[in-house]
Amino acid sequence: MSKSNNDLRHVTIIGAGLLGASIGLALKRRLPRVKIAGVGRRVASLRQALRIGAIDTAHLGAGEPVPASDLVILATPVGAFEGYLRAIRPLLKPGAWVTDVGSTKVQVVGAARRVLGSGGAFIGSHPMAGSERKGPAHARADLFAGATCVLTPSAGTPAALVARAQQFWRMLGMKVLRMTPAAHDRAVAAVSHLPHLASALLTLLPRDADLAVAATGLRDMTRLAAGDPEMWRDILLTNRGELIRAIDRLARSLKGARRLVARGDAAAIERFLRRAKDRRDELFGAG
Amino acid sequence: MSKSNNDLRHVTIIGAGLLGASIGLALKRRLPRVKIAGVGRRVASLRQALRIGAIDTAHLGAGEPVPASDLVILATPVGAFEGYLRAIRPLLKPGAWVTDVGSTKVQVVGAARRVLGSGGAFIGSHPMAGSERKGPAHARADLFAGATCVLTPSAGTPAALVARAQQFWRMLGMKVLRMTPAAHDRAVAAVSHLPHLASALLTLLPRDADLAVAATGLRDMTRLAAGDPEMWRDILLTNRGELIRAIDRLARSLKGARRLVARGDAAAIERFLRRAKDRRDELFGAG
Repeated sequence: MSKSNNDLRHVTIIGAGLLGASIGLALKRRLPRVKIAGVGRRVASLRQALRIGAIDTAHLGAGEPVPASDLVILATPVGAFEGYLRAIRPLLKPGAWVTDVGSTKVQVVGAARRVLGSGGAFIGSHPMAGSERKGPAHARADLFAGATCVLTPSAGTPAALVARAQQFWRMLGMKVLRMTPAAHDRAVAAVSHLPHLASALLTLLPRDADLAVAATGLRDMTRLAAGDPEMWRDILLTNRGELIRAIDRLARSLKGARRLVARGDAAAIERFLRRAKDRRDELFGAG
Repeated sequence: MSKSNNDLRHVTIIGAGLLGASIGLALKRRLPRVKIAGVGRRVASLRQALRIGAIDTAHLGAGEPVPASDLVILATPVGAFEGYLRAIRPLLKPGAWVTDVGSTKVQVVGAARRVLGSGGAFIGSHPMAGSERKGPAHARADLFAGATCVLTPSAGTPAALVARAQQFWRMLGMKVLRMTPAAHDRAVAAVSHLPHLASALLTLLPRDADLAVAATGLRDMTRLAAGDPEMWRDILLTNRGELIRAIDRLARSLKGARRLVARGDAAAIERFLRRAKDRRDELFGAG
């Protein structure tokens, strides 16, 4: 297997949503001669993806385009991956490789191993770009530029496949990290899945009468809750173990904060807020 | 008392931070001839407020400017209000009025009643504008434009004072709401103070190793945690009762979400996420 993707001729993207269509647009910009097939369930989304030039052909099933494809990318909600893997297995041509854009990796990599075999053609990817908007209408060729993509190779993943996947995401402008599927899922539970759940809870917490005073603070804290419920249902469910551990840690720290507030410990509250501010400033820049 | 503020000649702003200096700038734009005195503890902040034209004179104590002032605005952290109220009480000229920009109102209004008497010259205000940035360097004349200000008159507050305060904040471009101090504090606990606490907790929750995959979701959810620890310490402490009730409601709803995740109830999780998304879209606009 070549380490470069300059020989890519045919790519199938399964799922013509925000991520799938953005990959199509980005790929066209780098490799103008590549032919991209889009597979999806919704005719309207496929039409839109065609119209914006994210895909060249549209298909309601994987049967037509996969046999000719050098690369197949799964970009549906995670829950649909295993069904598509079973559908494409007998169709993949020798040397073709498969990856995905799912936000959880242990279950996805496990399903790929069961269906395609270990050391097979699959490598898990998590390009961490997106938006609370969904659908190809919001696709952008630069959605991935500057963002991070996590690759989660297994012990059996050929080095050439790792190199090729790395070169692919770098070509779209991404920084590439490697993690084990388990380390990935633990990390995203803490920095993404739990914050998403908390955003939904904070959106539903105020009484209607309280909303008269809703301002920018609530707007920021509820932005994630505007995300696609179907996609996030699958993300939360396919990372249940780590999510529950993260929920339990939040519950414990909430209890600790309640104690500080209840006993009116001004110095301890200020120290706690200062620690949070310092970490936030360090992570994302001060002011 | 006149219902209009067109006769304002002298204003004292106590606290030359982001809010105090922004009020100064906004007021100068509407009433170019008004003289604004700034009172603060930090010489550097006062100098900066002078330099940007937010105040005309700077003072380390309230003694000098208050006797000549038609209006005194408290814009320090809430914890310092009562001390300043005691300092200005013997200095206020007849007909002068006093308000504040504090984010909690029950304790502030109670302190003003104890110090200045009921039916006195005080009316509580909460102009809901701000930023995670602090200090006069970030002051803006349009900080308040389009935002909401809550007035919290008591039974004894003269109607003319309510009207005058309303006209004052409208003059700075704000929409004005009236609420009781208790209703205000309950509402802001749910839409602002609990979200702030949650933001700090979510900032501190990830392990250092998890932060390699931190992306825009965490950036959004931790933005509030960048706020000024000293200011927020006072806000949380002066709204302890309502904040604790809000914490307990969050703890209960977190437990409920944990149950849905633990039993893998896909339909219930999607319904929960859908309810949150619908409310968020309704509040702040879809997509």
